[in-house]
Amino acid sequence: MSEFELDARIARDSDLVTALDLCQLRIQNDSRWPWLVMVPQRSGLTEIFDLSPAEQALLSVEVNRVAAALKTVTGATKINVGALGNIVRQLHVHVIARFEGDPNWPGPIWGFGQSVTYEEQQKQDFLNKLVEALS
Amino acid sequence: MSEFELDARIARDSDLVTALDLCQLRIQNDSRWPWLVMVPQRSGLTEIFDLSPAEQALLSVEVNRVAAALKTVTGATKINVGALGNIVRQLHVHVIARFEGDPNWPGPIWGFGQSVTYEEQQKQDFLNKLVEALS
Repeated sequence: MSEFELDARIARDSDLVTALDLCQLRIQNDSRWPWLVMVPQRSGLTEIFDLSPAEQALLSVEVNRVAAALKTVTGATKINVGALGNIVRQLHVHVIARFEGDPNWPGPIWGFGQSVTYEEQQKQDFLNKLVEALS
Repeated sequence: MSEFELDARIARDSDLVTALDLCQLRIQNDSRWPWLVMVPQRSGLTEIFDLSPAEQALLSVEVNRVAAALKTVTGATKINVGALGNIVRQLHVHVIARFEGDPNWPGPIWGFGQSVTYEEQQKQDFLNKLVEALS
């Protein structure tokens, strides 16, 4: 297996929060909605079923754990989970906290409008709570 | 646990293909893209992490198996998998075959335009291949 290398667009649009056993947990630089991106640290994969069965199971555990923590921390109306990859082919899973009345509620967030940069303190406060909920 | 009852909107917009161990596998009545909907046969749940850990694992196995079969049958450019539920709250997972140049490529399919009814033979041919790939 060749060494894992993060897609350049994912690297540009998100920051590393922490590395889990399988996935990099990253936060998208878009304050319109709490938006996490999980990237299995495996090279050359585009579909979830490209992972080994054991890694598919681990991905499920990690995504669901992060989704539950995100719900706890944000009190979101609904958590949205999606693996699309139509633009960025490196396998990645989005986990987003959605609220009634958010900028594209109840539509999907992908491809909608322009991202809005976080204030650094706002992002740090959110991530501190998230990491605590995950620990 | 109360008896499973399918959400009325899901029942209206999709047809049952087969019942797996956990999920109803359904086909959305929209010929613009091969679009499957998987509904865990459990009542009162809205988030994947509302399932028991064993059922979360089973959901992952079933969704990934269906996604791989859908890729095989359609030769799709990319499989999109998503659990949104902003409109229909009953827990369900979308599995969609996407192609470069399809009506909203590379954007998401949710909330886009109007559905286009299948010709019955076209739908049946697709489902025959899908069920064979799953068996």
